[in-house]
Amino acid sequence: MLNQSELSSLIKSDPIDHFLLVKKCELRLTKGGKEFISLELGDKSNSFAANLWEDVAGFKSIKNSLVVGDIVRITGSMDEYQGNPQIKIESIRLSKQSDNVTPKDFLPRSLRDLTVMKKEFISRLEKIANPDLKSLLQNIFSDERFEKYISVPAGKMWHHSYISGLLEHTLEIIKICDLMCDIHPEISRDLVVCGAMLHDFGKIEELSYDPVFEYTDKGKLLGHIVIAAMIVNDEINKTPDFPENLKNNLLHLILSHQGKLEYASPVVPKTLEAITLYQADELSAKVNAYKNVIANELKPGSNWTKFISLAGTDMYSGGLLKNPGNENNIDNKTLFD
Amino acid sequence: MLNQSELSSLIKSDPIDHFLLVKKCELRLTKGGKEFISLELGDKSNSFAANLWEDVAGFKSIKNSLVVGDIVRITGSMDEYQGNPQIKIESIRLSKQSDNVTPKDFLPRSLRDLTVMKKEFISRLEKIANPDLKSLLQNIFSDERFEKYISVPAGKMWHHSYISGLLEHTLEIIKICDLMCDIHPEISRDLVVCGAMLHDFGKIEELSYDPVFEYTDKGKLLGHIVIAAMIVNDEINKTPDFPENLKNNLLHLILSHQGKLEYASPVVPKTLEAITLYQADELSAKVNAYKNVIANELKPGSNWTKFISLAGTDMYSGGLLKNPGNENNIDNKTLFD
Amino acid sequence: MLNQSELSSLIKSDPIDHFLLVKKCELRLTKGGKEFISLELGDKSNSFAANLWEDVAGFKSIKNSLVVGDIVRITGSMDEYQGNPQIKIESIRLSKQSDNVTPKDFLPRSLRDLTVMKKEFISRLEKIANPDLKSLLQNIFSDERFEKYISVPAGKMWHHSYISGLLEHTLEIIKICDLMCDIHPEISRDLVVCGAMLHDFGKIEELSYDPVFEYTDKGKLLGHIVIAAMIVNDEINKTPDFPENLKNNLLHLILSHQGKLEYASPVVPKTLEAITLYQADELSAKVNAYKNVIANELKPGSNWTKFISLAGTDMYSGGLLKNPGNENNIDNKTLFD
Amino acid sequence: MLNQSELSSLIKSDPIDHFLLVKKCELRLTKGGKEFISLELGDKSNSFAANLWEDVAGFKSIKNSLVVGDIVRITGSMDEYQGNPQIKIESIRLSKQSDNVTPKDFLPRSLRDLTVMKKEFISRLEKIANPDLKSLLQNIFSDERFEKYISVPAGKMWHHSYISGLLEHTLEIIKICDLMCDIHPEISRDLVVCGAMLHDFGKIEELSYDPVFEYTDKGKLLGHIVIAAMIVNDEINKTPDFPENLKNNLLHLILSHQGKLEYASPVVPKTLEAITLYQADELSAKVNAYKNVIANELKPGSNWTKFISLAGTDMYSGGLLKNPGNENNIDNKTLFD
Amino acid sequence: MLNQSELSSLIKSDPIDHFLLVKKCELRLTKGGKEFISLELGDKSNSFAANLWEDVAGFKSIKNSLVVGDIVRITGSMDEYQGNPQIKIESIRLSKQSDNVTPKDFLPRSLRDLTVMKKEFISRLEKIANPDLKSLLQNIFSDERFEKYISVPAGKMWHHSYISGLLEHTLEIIKICDLMCDIHPEISRDLVVCGAMLHDFGKIEELSYDPVFEYTDKGKLLGHIVIAAMIVNDEINKTPDFPENLKNNLLHLILSHQGKLEYASPVVPKTLEAITLYQADELSAKVNAYKNVIANELKPGSNWTKFISLAGTDMYSGGLLKNPGNENNIDNKTLFD
Amino acid sequence: MLNQSELSSLIKSDPIDHFLLVKKCELRLTKGGKEFISLELGDKSNSFAANLWEDVAGFKSIKNSLVVGDIVRITGSMDEYQGNPQIKIESIRLSKQSDNVTPKDFLPRSLRDLTVMKKEFISRLEKIANPDLKSLLQNIFSDERFEKYISVPAGKMWHHSYISGLLEHTLEIIKICDLMCDIHPEISRDLVVCGAMLHDFGKIEELSYDPVFEYTDKGKLLGHIVIAAMIVNDEINKTPDFPENLKNNLLHLILSHQGKLEYASPVVPKTLEAITLYQADELSAKVNAYKNVIANELKPGSNWTKFISLAGTDMYSGGLLKNPGNENNIDNKTLFD
Repeated sequence: MLNQSELSSLIKSDPIDHFLLVKKCELRLTKGGKEFISLELGDKSNSFAANLWEDVAGFKSIKNSLVVGDIVRITGSMDEYQGNPQIKIESIRLSKQSDNVTPKDFLPRSLRDLTVMKKEFISRLEKIANPDLKSLLQNIFSDERFEKYISVPAGKMWHHSYISGLLEHTLEIIKICDLMCDIHPEISRDLVVCGAMLHDFGKIEELSYDPVFEYTDKGKLLGHIVIAAMIVNDEINKTPDFPENLKNNLLHLILSHQGKLEYASPVVPKTLEAITLYQADELSAKVNAYKNVIANELKPGSNWTKFISLAGTDMYSGGLLKNPGNENNIDNKTLFD
Repeated sequence: MLNQSELSSLIKSDPIDHFLLVKKCELRLTKGGKEFISLELGDKSNSFAANLWEDVAGFKSIKNSLVVGDIVRITGSMDEYQGNPQIKIESIRLSKQSDNVTPKDFLPRSLRDLTVMKKEFISRLEKIANPDLKSLLQNIFSDERFEKYISVPAGKMWHHSYISGLLEHTLEIIKICDLMCDIHPEISRDLVVCGAMLHDFGKIEELSYDPVFEYTDKGKLLGHIVIAAMIVNDEINKTPDFPENLKNNLLHLILSHQGKLEYASPVVPKTLEAITLYQADELSAKVNAYKNVIANELKPGSNWTKFISLAGTDMYSGGLLKNPGNENNIDNKTLFD
Repeated sequence: MLNQSELSSLIKSDPIDHFLLVKKCELRLTKGGKEFISLELGDKSNSFAANLWEDVAGFKSIKNSLVVGDIVRITGSMDEYQGNPQIKIESIRLSKQSDNVTPKDFLPRSLRDLTVMKKEFISRLEKIANPDLKSLLQNIFSDERFEKYISVPAGKMWHHSYISGLLEHTLEIIKICDLMCDIHPEISRDLVVCGAMLHDFGKIEELSYDPVFEYTDKGKLLGHIVIAAMIVNDEINKTPDFPENLKNNLLHLILSHQGKLEYASPVVPKTLEAITLYQADELSAKVNAYKNVIANELKPGSNWTKFISLAGTDMYSGGLLKNPGNENNIDNKTLFD
Repeated sequence: MLNQSELSSLIKSDPIDHFLLVKKCELRLTKGGKEFISLELGDKSNSFAANLWEDVAGFKSIKNSLVVGDIVRITGSMDEYQGNPQIKIESIRLSKQSDNVTPKDFLPRSLRDLTVMKKEFISRLEKIANPDLKSLLQNIFSDERFEKYISVPAGKMWHHSYISGLLEHTLEIIKICDLMCDIHPEISRDLVVCGAMLHDFGKIEELSYDPVFEYTDKGKLLGHIVIAAMIVNDEINKTPDFPENLKNNLLHLILSHQGKLEYASPVVPKTLEAITLYQADELSAKVNAYKNVIANELKPGSNWTKFISLAGTDMYSGGLLKNPGNENNIDNKTLFD
Repeated sequence: MLNQSELSSLIKSDPIDHFLLVKKCELRLTKGGKEFISLELGDKSNSFAANLWEDVAGFKSIKNSLVVGDIVRITGSMDEYQGNPQIKIESIRLSKQSDNVTPKDFLPRSLRDLTVMKKEFISRLEKIANPDLKSLLQNIFSDERFEKYISVPAGKMWHHSYISGLLEHTLEIIKICDLMCDIHPEISRDLVVCGAMLHDFGKIEELSYDPVFEYTDKGKLLGHIVIAAMIVNDEINKTPDFPENLKNNLLHLILSHQGKLEYASPVVPKTLEAITLYQADELSAKVNAYKNVIANELKPGSNWTKFISLAGTDMYSGGLLKNPGNENNIDNKTLFD
Repeated sequence: MLNQSELSSLIKSDPIDHFLLVKKCELRLTKGGKEFISLELGDKSNSFAANLWEDVAGFKSIKNSLVVGDIVRITGSMDEYQGNPQIKIESIRLSKQSDNVTPKDFLPRSLRDLTVMKKEFISRLEKIANPDLKSLLQNIFSDERFEKYISVPAGKMWHHSYISGLLEHTLEIIKICDLMCDIHPEISRDLVVCGAMLHDFGKIEELSYDPVFEYTDKGKLLGHIVIAAMIVNDEINKTPDFPENLKNNLLHLILSHQGKLEYASPVVPKTLEAITLYQADELSAKVNAYKNVIANELKPGSNWTKFISLAGTDMYSGGLLKNPGNENNIDNKTLFD
């Protein structure tokens, strides 16, 4: 486990003596014709640019071998270039086995406790009453798939884009769907919760996240919606007597969960459960996205972020009301109990 | 109180001896040149067409005076015309004072208990901790305005389009927003709940609902969003020392709650509370709308509704999973506590 | 086999003594309160409205049993109502077994010879050189599926919307794709032809066409694109050592063939083969659609059709140049050889 | 008053000895690690980039204190960098009180005479015949508000984006509306002119323009349309017996004047006056915008501007016909008389 | 000249003894099987439906010959059917030569005096200073073309859709453009006025208006924009030494005057004159359209029209402020002088 | 004729001793204040950036005279800057007459043999049976115009954007249209082929391509569609007795060939020939565009291109199936016979 201050906590001139993950790495020439390496270095809290000049100790030994995904040990300090933070490198070396660091230590990660989240997920799955759906979920979430499922981010950017982000996002949606089922007994609770658990499941094959978040060829050619539908279809076909109508309804939930054709759903929501899942997904995703953008993208000295094209606006951090102590001391560690 | 079976429970050939509200009323000519009155008659459960032929008892005495909003007593039977239910009238008379019926008895109405909903609303308002917001809400929800607020439908069609629909809708949104505040302590709970209470408040002047739901001139020229913003602005201006920043944030919630310019919000959500309110509103509205459409618009003998243009699709009533008895016996009477 | 003139060849006042398929059937009341049945009756050439009055011979014996898909024997004549052709019924009876007629005799049907089209398809399949693709196609086009495949229309309306329409449409696309492969050797011929054969294959489960064209529940909930992808995925999973990359490319062809997200493709074309297939599909579909609309929907006495909303325009039948005899005497019976 | 040549009149190599306004100001590092300040300096005619190197006289004394809005005295010359004009600084100092310069001297400003424009506005207001509207306008245009109103630009960019731009723009719209009233007596002249005067009035709170044009927090959260509506609503509420219908019509003019929901109007124009105001606004704005773009953004040596994204095109300065002397010698100083 | 009251002035039960133009004419059957003719009859003020029953005097003599464009003499009275005015026919006969009536007497017609409008147009043309443009206009507006030009409506529906509507519309645009030239000397006055005169000129071949307004084949296949461009191009090609740049600028005005590609302009406005013409055209068209809709389409007993799809809204006739007598007594007979 | 290796075949460090065309040329300053020239240099295979530093031999003699379209002789080597190839210049001189090189030698050019393509075009023209169309084509393709026609690219970017690209593109469309005529005898073969030949013909005046591809003023103000329509209209007007209906149909083909208003066609396709031509054009253009992008824009070491905004996606070069030798050995030199 890493024992070093987080990048996001450093300010200009702070000294750096850190292991960092190489996220971009390009050999370039200065206008004067000298070689340097343009880097992006990060830990789980943030990433910054850094130029590795050829007169820095260690330059020669790594310049031909360094690749994205490597971990390096840097000394230097926090600096600034054109208003953006930048790392000034004074020495660099590749990490060694004895350093006992892995790329996963440097990826952003859900702030919620993974063990708690796994328990919540499994416990909620146990409460599914319909035996066909419960058995199907147990088959789909085999050990190998579950391992990926609890790690994968919900996306490369925008919302829940960190390790275990998909699990965190899914638990929020389940919580919202359960509330809607409390309000509307007409919604099939088992079905909509099962749909919530599976809706973004295809991301385990659409995205790779080791050492950096990236879309796979399969992900770009098929998309996570169809990948999930095909896996679920496969597992159902292995199950004798799974009801045809239930199968179509469940697949419909997965296929329609992005709500509109232009958002890449091949069908729009046509059932009560489908509209519930789509809107719950939107609620969880948008609130998380705004929260993260406002936390990370405020312009210096301003309550406003830059223009965020995915939202079509800049965002405002009014910072106005502190939630009074007593009312809000929610035990946020578990959503279910 | 009316003691008669609901229209929606009647089937073809059932006899009718009912008080009904006149919702449309046009004097016409048959091709043969005879006068008849084309009516739409309804109770709170449904409305049907009916033709009043000139040889029906009572035709002459009412033909020149009958207007929308009158209540009539009908005898006759349920019939059908071109696949749609229709009322066959055998006699008709205007209601008298001694009948003790008012148009309100015939308007669709929230299925939730109004007293309970009022209590929930007031109780949640009491929990607002910020004194500026709490005091503002108490001023806005004066007795006269509150009386309208608890009656008005959330819309003329589509979702929560029945008496007390706005109150029911608002309570759902509050419930959803409170859940999102549990998950995200960064959201200002008082602010977003206050925004939820006020977001559609302008509908008390945008809509009239007695005797039928209709938009007012003011409503069509200004829209409920700006009406609400102006009332809230007025009340804040009367309050000494209401913080300017809090005022702008609260007005922003009202103005942006429809989420997109093309949905008639003059600004898009730019704060964490605004995106939460918008998405919570969508979730409550869409699920209610789908539920009502599926309940009321299935094609005869089909699991599909007709094409619903507001949703851009037809809808499916799979009717597949019954929610098992024990799990779902939620005390739906109160959403809070 | 039916031996009667086609409906489309009849003009006003022509006598009718025909077997016809019941395509719509509703029991209604006249304003005077008498029962009649509003029908749509058709053969493979066209369909017209007809009212069955209660004084017509045969009315009573069938009024409670007649359903869509029945075949009836009608005497009467061609008439007109409000400018539209209508059938005037003088007598009616249900078809009997001894009449030896089936609904299929009354469905519109491709004008090309089915035997020839089957041969063309099989012969083209035989020419696929890649063994994985060829073997996959042979597995997918099992006898049972092939039987459906050669019958299903390409759609309910718009283009190739007749029995064997999908096969006719597919052969055109193959022909176009082969031409594009002649021009561009960079296109993988086997892959694009295989994609063409499978692209709309899911319609065998999306549509039912016996006795009338209709979408199935599965078709409306999943769509033919995903249905096809799931079947192909299943068959590939049964095949040992089918190359992963080839699988993803083939599935991409199916998924992207409608070209745009808003046309219900969950991914847009990203390969040379995918863009070729999408544009070939468009070319075949649009030309067929325009041809049929211009042939069938001209306003009486005009060279213009009514406004066609799927095309966003009315269409013009200039009828200007006759293709000179010699140049055009193409043996249209076979597209391949 | 400044007595120096305008920036826009200078060409490459011209010497500079000017007071200029600091519009941007960032301390940066060269690749070699030396500090410099990246500036944007402007007068009312134009603004250019300038780099202040650390060896320039005055660098040290100002590097830690210089902020946007300061006025500096520069010596140096006009230069060019990558095809764009740039100021080469040889010496710099902060302005002193004795220099007798203020930021307002450096802001772009309407070319029309402010005194004349004020007279035109007041004179036109005096001609309003309806006493309710006239009195309302007099109350709204209190001295303090009028002072802002005659200074504020109509926007940050695009059209009339200079000091007194809103007043100039408003007078044009009034002129156009009066012409439309001459043509169509059905238009309520008092109402539409009152709407024209108030339509963009909210910009006095939406925009700040001292020392640079910027949107305020309130402006971004509420928008000038709702700000204006709330002020007008306030003033009307203070007026006894202001007709309700007139109020709604006037507010409708303000709310709908951007013409479409997607242009941020919460209602579309629904009255004859509203459509007149919207189209007059468009005409005034677009012509001014094109004129300014063509005057300022031609590519060097070309009759074409670069691509202008707000217009969706590049623009052409054909420069073809000179308006002949006599016909066009309009006394442009006053639009009214 | 007709000497009879206008249809629009008649109310229910008023007797009718009028010549009227046949605008639609269809022979139909009643449900009982009797023939009748469904008519639309109109004069220049309005048009109404009428059913001609077979027992009306004159039915037999005209039933096989009556066509659109005929003039008939009707006796009867104003009636109503389903809330819409309808003409009840008691007798009918075809007009005779001795009646001295022509279809033109029955077409809606500009309310402005045609002689005055012609003078205004010619007088404005005379003021064009540029000899190339002036000479071009004189060649284009040859006697034959000018005759059509002063008659043609500006459209089939929506705005200025009456005889001489194009001329009235063009004069308004010229007036607006001249105002904009007064404000902005940078606009080439001759060019923009020339563009205004020619912009919709192609409508003389796009529309036929005798006896009813209809699009021609050429109009539907080419559109009035390209028709005008081709005529102007032809005339310029006949003129020696017409400047190439002036030609392109003038053609650009015609081609871009609908402002956006999706409004069928093949290029968007790229010059100052083009944006002026487009926005002036919009202003003239929209105000005229709203005025006519509000005058003609109010729902009975309401200040609101039905929903107008071309405007995307219903419209409100607030009818609030009467323009005070003195201020508005504009001599509307001439726009110029 | 040039005898030097193609730029696209060179890799990093390869020596360069080439004639190259100057495609961009800007005199700039380094941060240190030294002059250099930023160049883009290309041959027909590709173009790269190059910086000409002031210490390079030849700098002084050319720095004030070098312009776009010049040919220079360079020595140096292939280098790289920020991941992009760049030319490192060691010496430079202007080409001399004795070098015998012209800019045309350096423009990208169709890979098909121009003589063959010309023959194909002329031979296909000869087969037009309709004498009016054939004669028209012969008049339009006069020697001077034909010379331009066979050289002009089909566009500045995207598809067939090389010398003779329009001819290559047109031949593909003809081939596709002929296939569609084989399938559908209802299509008028002569008309659609004539439309194919003329549809983009206006590009000979819309584009200049010597020495670089650029839009002309006329092209930007009128567009190639209207330019073509005007030329064709002119030629038809010179032809006695050309049928009016045929003229309108042919012009319609040209005007509608971009298929949608928003793609700058002033009318949408309304005839069978027009829809055929539009879709054939799309097929030819899109497949060519994808092919070129995939060939030229793959990211280094990846099977994916960068994001291509005209396609709205990145593209994949699966490179999976090699077309087997025998099947595909199409003699691609001629498309016809």
